[in-house]
Order: sequence, then structure tokens, then C-alpha cells
Amino acid sequence: MMDNTGIIILAAGSSSRLGTAKQLLDYQGKTLLMHVVEQALASQPARVVVVVGAHAEEITATLAGKDVVVCYNADWSTGMASSMNRGMTQLLIENPAITSCIFSVCDQPYILKENFTQLFVHQLETGKGIVASTYADTVGVPVLFSKAYFKILIALHGDQGAKKIVEQHKDDLATIPFDSGGVDIDRPEDLKYLWNQMVSVSAAQEIIKNNCTWEYKRIRNIGNVCGYIVAEPIISTLDIPHFRQSSMDGYAIKFEDRLKTLKVVGEMRAGQPSVVKLMSGQAIRVFTGAPLPEDADTVVMQERVKRDGDWVMVEDDHLAIGLNVRQKGSEAQKGTLAFAAGALLTPAAIGFLAGIGCREVLIFEPPKIAVIITGDELQEVGKPLAFGQVYESNSLQLRAALKKGGVAEISLYQSEDDPKKLEAVLAEALRESDMVLLVGGVSVGDYDFVVQTALREGVRPHFHKVKQKPGKPLFFGTKEGKMVFGLPGNPSSALTCFYLYVLPAIDQMMRRPHSLMIISALVAADYNKSTGLTHFIKAHFKDGRVLPLHAQESYRLQSYAQANCLLVLEEASTGVKVGDEVQVILLP
Amino acid sequence: MMDNTGIIILAAGSSSRLGTAKQLLDYQGKTLLMHVVEQALASQPARVVVVVGAHAEEITATLAGKDVVVCYNADWSTGMASSMNRGMTQLLIENPAITSCIFSVCDQPYILKENFTQLFVHQLETGKGIVASTYADTVGVPVLFSKAYFKILIALHGDQGAKKIVEQHKDDLATIPFDSGGVDIDRPEDLKYLWNQMVSVSAAQEIIKNNCTWEYKRIRNIGNVCGYIVAEPIISTLDIPHFRQSSMDGYAIKFEDRLKTLKVVGEMRAGQPSVVKLMSGQAIRVFTGAPLPEDADTVVMQERVKRDGDWVMVEDDHLAIGLNVRQKGSEAQKGTLAFAAGALLTPAAIGFLAGIGCREVLIFEPPKIAVIITGDELQEVGKPLAFGQVYESNSLQLRAALKKGGVAEISLYQSEDDPKKLEAVLAEALRESDMVLLVGGVSVGDYDFVVQTALREGVRPHFHKVKQKPGKPLFFGTKEGKMVFGLPGNPSSALTCFYLYVLPAIDQMMRRPHSLMIISALVAADYNKSTGLTHFIKAHFKDGRVLPLHAQESYRLQSYAQANCLLVLEEASTGVKVGDEVQVILLP
Repeated sequence: MMDNTGIIILAAGSSSRLGTAKQLLDYQGKTLLMHVVEQALASQPARVVVVVGAHAEEITATLAGKDVVVCYNADWSTGMASSMNRGMTQLLIENPAITSCIFSVCDQPYILKENFTQLFVHQLETGKGIVASTYADTVGVPVLFSKAYFKILIALHGDQGAKKIVEQHKDDLATIPFDSGGVDIDRPEDLKYLWNQMVSVSAAQEIIKNNCTWEYKRIRNIGNVCGYIVAEPIISTLDIPHFRQSSMDGYAIKFEDRLKTLKVVGEMRAGQPSVVKLMSGQAIRVFTGAPLPEDADTVVMQERVKRDGDWVMVEDDHLAIGLNVRQKGSEAQKGTLAFAAGALLTPAAIGFLAGIGCREVLIFEPPKIAVIITGDELQEVGKPLAFGQVYESNSLQLRAALKKGGVAEISLYQSEDDPKKLEAVLAEALRESDMVLLVGGVSVGDYDFVVQTALREGVRPHFHKVKQKPGKPLFFGTKEGKMVFGLPGNPSSALTCFYLYVLPAIDQMMRRPHSLMIISALVAADYNKSTGLTHFIKAHFKDGRVLPLHAQESYRLQSYAQANCLLVLEEASTGVKVGDEVQVILLP
Repeated sequence: MMDNTGIIILAAGSSSRLGTAKQLLDYQGKTLLMHVVEQALASQPARVVVVVGAHAEEITATLAGKDVVVCYNADWSTGMASSMNRGMTQLLIENPAITSCIFSVCDQPYILKENFTQLFVHQLETGKGIVASTYADTVGVPVLFSKAYFKILIALHGDQGAKKIVEQHKDDLATIPFDSGGVDIDRPEDLKYLWNQMVSVSAAQEIIKNNCTWEYKRIRNIGNVCGYIVAEPIISTLDIPHFRQSSMDGYAIKFEDRLKTLKVVGEMRAGQPSVVKLMSGQAIRVFTGAPLPEDADTVVMQERVKRDGDWVMVEDDHLAIGLNVRQKGSEAQKGTLAFAAGALLTPAAIGFLAGIGCREVLIFEPPKIAVIITGDELQEVGKPLAFGQVYESNSLQLRAALKKGGVAEISLYQSEDDPKKLEAVLAEALRESDMVLLVGGVSVGDYDFVVQTALREGVRPHFHKVKQKPGKPLFFGTKEGKMVFGLPGNPSSALTCFYLYVLPAIDQMMRRPHSLMIISALVAADYNKSTGLTHFIKAHFKDGRVLPLHAQESYRLQSYAQANCLLVLEEASTGVKVGDEVQVILLP
């Protein structure tokens, strides 16, 4: 795709602060640099250039066999500028025809190929000369420069950097959020337990989005596709209508006969299998949907004739040739596009496709989802409650929310708080389903073992804690492209995490529009909070105003039962006063 | 209900314009006056007074056995005022304690008991002294006057009427729409074929609403109630939580011991069935959701202690007695209201009810719906299309729309255009289902016989034509409380009629909020229309702007397949220009 774009990975630094070569730190079984190189290559650019300096030999050795050009910057210790101009020069030597280049670094463990392709696509969309990533209010790498900046880049020296160029050309700048791009690696351990760092809500959402690789298309009968997205263009195989039709109850005539008194010689009704031939001086009675008689070209509405026995006179000053005739192929023409890929299958779309004879449609399927409930304290609803027990409600509310979200295949598992048993259940769930929701046991207490079990089962962790309330101990990992969410056991937290993270992932998998609508509203009561976490407050929205509800504690669902939205207060917010404008997530 | 309200029916006129006593015209098997009298009685007022004048004897005879007071106005020919003061006086003689009275007439065939009760309820809600009905921009009967107006009413004479009083007291007036109240009876035939008169969109919607008498409640398992409305208050049968719980991972202590070094003597985890007793000087390790040890009153978060072997010291300046303890019954208290009747069962509500041990819920059920497709020209999708045939798409799109609307039981019938066969199918559908959608054959052509078949089957017709495009030949009738809709066969018209009339009726039956959202938007292209019909235009809404789509013809679904809303242009509108504000119905 990115035929005219090169990627330059700056990997020349000495990582003096870290005490060891950052490029070669181990990140989930490979070096940090290798991770960036592989993602860069996966985005299919014209060329990938890696600029090395400190530890050059050692680093170059690790890149053997990869389709990249390694170039050495002898001046690496003078700063980033020398590596940028060295890389730019090398890229132009390799591919003189490129029209843009992307600079990247090697210490962004969350970078994925999408971060490169998004820059490329956004450049096309905006026409801007620079497209940069943003995180935590700053502009940074990866950053794309178009050809106009190549000269400046080659001339860079001393302590100049990309940032300065960006600042000098703000009018020509577009940006793309890359919230997880700001995660810092200050110690080698940071990388090993990177997923254990607390991430912001937007970083968590982004990490999930970038790890959503699901693509499952399936042919379904037209009677069973409502709410899905069409996965390929639908071409009409017929002309529809299949024959010329009358659109009115009236009389079929030849337009040239309109001033004559015409003899009614027959009639044609909808569904009539054979056609009658119309002769000059004749009219044929026709009904809505009936085939037009041969050689007739116009239909006169029955209200616009004077009939006397077998004879009719047209009395229609506005009659025109072809009036009230549905032409063959006027709804859909054989061989042409009837319905675009990516469009939503509404009831009307289903009717339309059925009408053109389309019996089956290729659609994007929802994932099969496994819900695993853990917790020895849980009792089934309907049975008596012993001391220490609580009723198990998560499976019921999550199944309701999943069904409402269009997920048809839901497998429910329940596991004791026993690592061996949970391991077996998780293994089966990962085998049988496309996404797993583990519920309970994800907080940091001594008895919380769900995350450990997931890791043992080979789930690659992406994050464990999110700067939010409720739902701070949310876990997210993947195994072979299957998403694994660890939702907190508190019903209220579990449901909020479902709406904020799981449902959007399902929307993305099914390629459908977002299920959650975010709107602005005026708050109807004061609400205080401390900074540090994003709060999602159960609330009721009506007529442009939103009221935070009582009982926000995470174990309580009573207020949630009355809520129709979540009021969002960002990390930095210290609360709101009556009348303040706030963001509200309407619950589906 | 209306214990302090009387109803006065003015039936003294001579109907000189009509040439016969309007009061005694036959309307669906009874006199027009009898219809009004029965509806008035059904609203359970304190008293019903009928004022007669012309044809007094004959009319009085027809009311024998009815619980009404008939009073004769000898001055009937001087005008309405004399009948009003005569009726008012009689009502006060009968029931001196009444505090309001409603005046009605005998030539509003669409009047139902709801029209009386609505006036009464609206008076209570608004506190206004007069509540009048409105239709076609005018204020009229039935009209309610409260006690303060009785003196004026008794003093009425000559050509004064209710209208003048209303005009003089506009500040004290509230109104209620009664669109079908304006239907005129100018000839005796009008009444017989009243349902054949074309009605406005709002009158059609009102007639359906007033004829919706469905009420079916059913007990369902909590796992199967999402999207329904609860039909009775739910009282908690348990205290939830059922025992004092820790809300944190930490240490349970006695608050009075907070300054001592405490010995950790055990631990309690969630689900632990037996309780440990805490002694002075001790602490017990607890995890989130665990029962609190006996005699413990406070939990210290694990981050707020210093632990050394078996000993802990509390380091929490903000510790308070009861902190981090979920009290018994704090989510739901035994014997108290947990969930109100009429509330929506969202996933969160289901979780909440499961959590308090509620296994079954009484809900308002959706109706079982039969869809009867007629038309000899129809061919099943997937089979080859012969000359004159079209693919049958209505059953597919309507079933998709019904399922999306929460209707679970849908029976599909197909009938040839043969009266006998259709009659048998309709009879079965009426027997087996709660609502029938007849599709096709409702226009006025010679081959359209669906309405005739419905009438023969004992369906009482309410209207047949609506001033709208598309969907003009919409039929609506009832039989023994079951609704019968005759939808046009054109797929686009059928679907629009479904959204405008059938879906709101289902919403009403299920007591749930409206499925259709109506919003304002700015139109993005000019659109011309002629006056007389309300137009519903397939359109696309985005970011506050709405674009009318091409191909609005009623046989075409292609534009509908791309639409997400209907743009509404009222009867009187001659079209809109770019930037005009319009009403838009968002499709669900």
C-alpha cells in the first residue's frame, strides 16, 4: 500500500540513562528494536532504514535476514539530528522516487503496523505535509514528512530535531492520537512488566483497537442478516423490475393514440404470465404491478379517463409518454452494483436485496464469546443463600448485554477459585470461542489468580490496570488473535468495562457503527472527585440534562438499574457544578 | 375514577342540514348517540346527562335502560346555549357535589372513553380551569369546565356557546389533541363509510392508539427479560448484601484498636462459609467480598498497614469506624421496593435483580404477530423469475423489522389472490395471533379485495386511507381487541407504514418507550411537494443535516436501503429549501 513511503527507524542512541542498550531489551520474546522493525515491515512501505550508532555491531547482528537497510551514523553522539539526516540520505539513495518518509524510534513497545498506515492514510485525507502522532498533549513519533521537507531533513544538524520542524510548520500539520506511544521505558524491568503499568482510558481503548485482528466473513441467508455489515459488493444478477410494469390502476395505451376514443380490448393484472399485444386504437385495462401490454408505452390513471362501455377517452392534460410505467431495470440493472460493501443491513436493505433476487449475503460475523465466571462465594439465583454467599449476577447481565449487542453464540463457564480448574476451563474457552471474558479475580489481592492463569495459558498481556473508576483492575490480553478480557467481579465494574471496552471491540469486529453514542449534556447536580482517574458515573439523561445517580459504589447495581448513561469525568477533573457541560455515554 | 365529574351530552339539535336526526344515524350497528353515551358511561363519571330537543321522544326511547338522565330543552331551537345551561342545571340538581363537568356532542364517531378520562387527568396535571380538545387548529368538544365556571354556564343564553367562554379565559385553558374529533358527518352515508374517509396522519395514529386495548402480562425467567417492562413492583425478599462484607483487600479490626500493634490471627476470603471471631488486639486478613469477622467493625486497606511477620500497625490518618465495610441490606433491604413497576429491564437491571435473588419477573409481553402476504405475482427469492413475477420481499423485511422490534413470535402466511383462500388464512391468523399484518391488495383497484375479506371476517374498520405519501391506502381495523393492519403491497410503502403505525402500537402494547426518535435537522437539498398529503421521504441524517435520497417511488427500496431516517413534510408544506429546519424520524 505504502509504495512511495519509506520508514526510518532511529536506533543509534546509547541509552545512557538505562545503563544497557535499549534497542536490545527483551520484549515478549524479542528485542524492542525487532518489534518495531517487524511492525514497520508489516505496514509494507517502500523501504525500511535502520540508523545505528552506539552498540552498532551488536545491533546490526540482530537484524540479519530482515529486509531492512542498516546504516551507521558515526556522529550518533552529537544527537538525533545527525541520525535523521543520515537516515534520510540513505533512504533517498535506496529509493529516489519516494514521496514521503516516516521517522520512528525503537522504544515504543505499543507501536503496531497500524500506527504507520494511519499516518499514511491521514496524509492522503488531509493533504497536509506533516502528520505526527500525539500523546499526553505532546506531538511526537512516528511522524510522516512529505517530499517538501526532505531538503530540510537532510540539512538537519546539531541539536535540531523533528519537533522543531513540526513547530515551524503548524499550518501544514495534521495529527493522529497514539496515546500508548507515551509509555516510558526507564528501567529494563519496565518492559517486562509493561502491561502491569497503569494506562489511561484512551490508551487502553487504543491498545484494544490496534489488537483487533479478527476478520470472519460468512455467507448467510438473507432472512438472517439484519444488523450485520455486508462484506463484499453485491452485483445485481437481474434487471429489476424484470419487465415493464404499470405503476397505477388505469389503461395502457400508445401515447400517439391519446386523442382517440379507444376500445378496451382486455385487461392485465399483476402476476399475469402472458403478455397481450396492443394494437392502434385500443386500450387495455391494467392494474398496479401488471406487465405492460406489448407495444403500449404509457398508462393513464383510471381517474383520468372517461369510460363508456367498452370505450375510453383520455382526459389528462399532463399525460406524457412513458407516464406511470416502471421501466425494466429501473430499480436494479443486471451486472451493476446494487449494494456496496461495508453497508449496514437494515430491514429496508434486506427488502431491497430480496427484491432483486439476492438469497445469500456475505457478512462480517460477530465473534463466539465465552464468559467465564470465577468466585467460590457465588450462588445460583433461585437457590438459598448460605452465609458468605452472594448471588451470581454477572453471567445474566453480561449475556443480556451481549445478546442485545448482536452476539448470538455465548458459552457460559463457571469455575471454582482453583488454578488447575480455571486453567482447564480457560483452555477450553480459548479453543472453542473467539473471545473470552473472564469475570472476577482480577484485582491485586492474594486470592486473585485469574491473570496468572491467563499468562500460564499463553495469553500475551497488554495491560492490567486502567486509570479509571470503576474498573481499575481491568485486564486485556490476546492469544493467537483472540481477545481475552479480565473483567472485575463487582457487577457494576464488570458492566462498565463491558460497555467501554468489550462492546466497542465487538463493533469493530463486525465492522458496524459504534453502539455507544457520546453526547454533550448539562449536569443537573454537583459531583466531586479527586484527580488521577477517569470516572464513569451512573447517571440519567433526559432533555439535554444529566443527573448523577446515588449509590456509585462498585458492588452496587441499583443505581445502574436506573441509569441510561454514564457521565464521564476525565482524569484531571476535580468535579462538576450544576450547569457545567459534560460528556455523556448513552447506554445502548 | 371521575367521581366528581359529570358529563353532559348535547343532543338537542334538529340536524336540518342532514335532513334526518343525526343522533339516530346508524354507526356500526348502534346509533351515533348511543356510541357517545356508552363511551361516556365507560369513563365512569359521577353522572351522564343527555339534553334532548328535536325528535325528543324518539331519541329518549332509544336510551331506555341506560344509566343516564335525559332532560328536555324546550328552547332547543334558540341555539346551543340553552341546552348547555339546561344540562348544567340538571347535572347540579342530580349531583350538587360535582367539581367539574364535561360537555360533549353526539356527532363525533371517533370519540372513546379515553377522550373523557384524558381531559380529567390533564385538568389534575395542569390545574387549569378549562381543558378543551383540539382538532385542525380549532378548540372544541369534549371540553371540561371546573366549578369556577358553573355560574357562567348556567347563565348562558342566546347564541353564546362554550367557544366564547374558552376564548375569554385563555390563560386558564389547557388543551389535548383529538385529531379525529374533527371528522364531519354531512350525509348519512358518511357515517356508514366513515372509515372510508381519508384521515390525517395524526388522526390515524390517534385512532390506533385509542384502540390499543392489549394487556398481556407473563412471568419470565430473569435470563430472558432484556428490553421488556416490569409489570408489577418488585419487593426484595432478602437483605443484600446478606452479611457484612469487606469492600477491600485488607485487615479487619476493631476501630478502638487502631493505635495498637495487632496480631494477625487468621484470614477470611470471599465465599468462606464460617465466621471467625475477632478479639481485642487482633487483626484478621480479609479479601474483597469476604464476610467480616464477628466483632470487627472496620477494614483497613492493605496499602495502609505496616506488616511485620504476624503483626500489623495501622497507618491510615483517614480511618473511620465502618470504613470499607458493606453493611447488611445496604444494596436492598428485605421487604422494601427494589424495582418499580413500569421500569425498563436493561442488562444492569437484570444484574441488579439477579443479585437480590430475583429469579422471575412479571413483564408486559409483545404480541404474537401474523404476517399475511397476498399477490399472485410474487415469487420466492432464490427461484427463477417468470414473466410477470416479482420477488416477494415484504415478508423478509417485515420479519427483520419485527424481530428488531422485540417481537419473538411471528407467523408467516402466504395467500393467493382468491377471496375464499384469503378468508381461511385470515381466520386462522386472527385465531392464532394477537395482531395481523395483511400485506398487499389494499389499494382501490378492482383486484384489491383484502379489505372486503377483512370486513367479511368481522373486522371492524376504523380507517382505510391516510393523507400521506407513501402509504395512502393503509387500512386499520380491530376484531375482539386484536389489531388488523392492511399494509400496501409496495415494499417501500409497507415498511414506512410499519414504522409509522405498527411499531408504535407494539411499543404501546409492551409499555416501553417509543422506538422512533423524532429530532430536528437542517435539510441539505431542496425538495418540492404539492399540498394535501404528508410526505415521508427516505433520507440520510448525519451531524444535524438531513439529505433526501433519490428514487422515492413507492415500488423502490434502493433508496430505503441507504436511508437512516424519514424526513417529514406536513400536508400544508409546499417543499423545503436547503437550510430549512425539518422534522426527522430516526429509523431504529
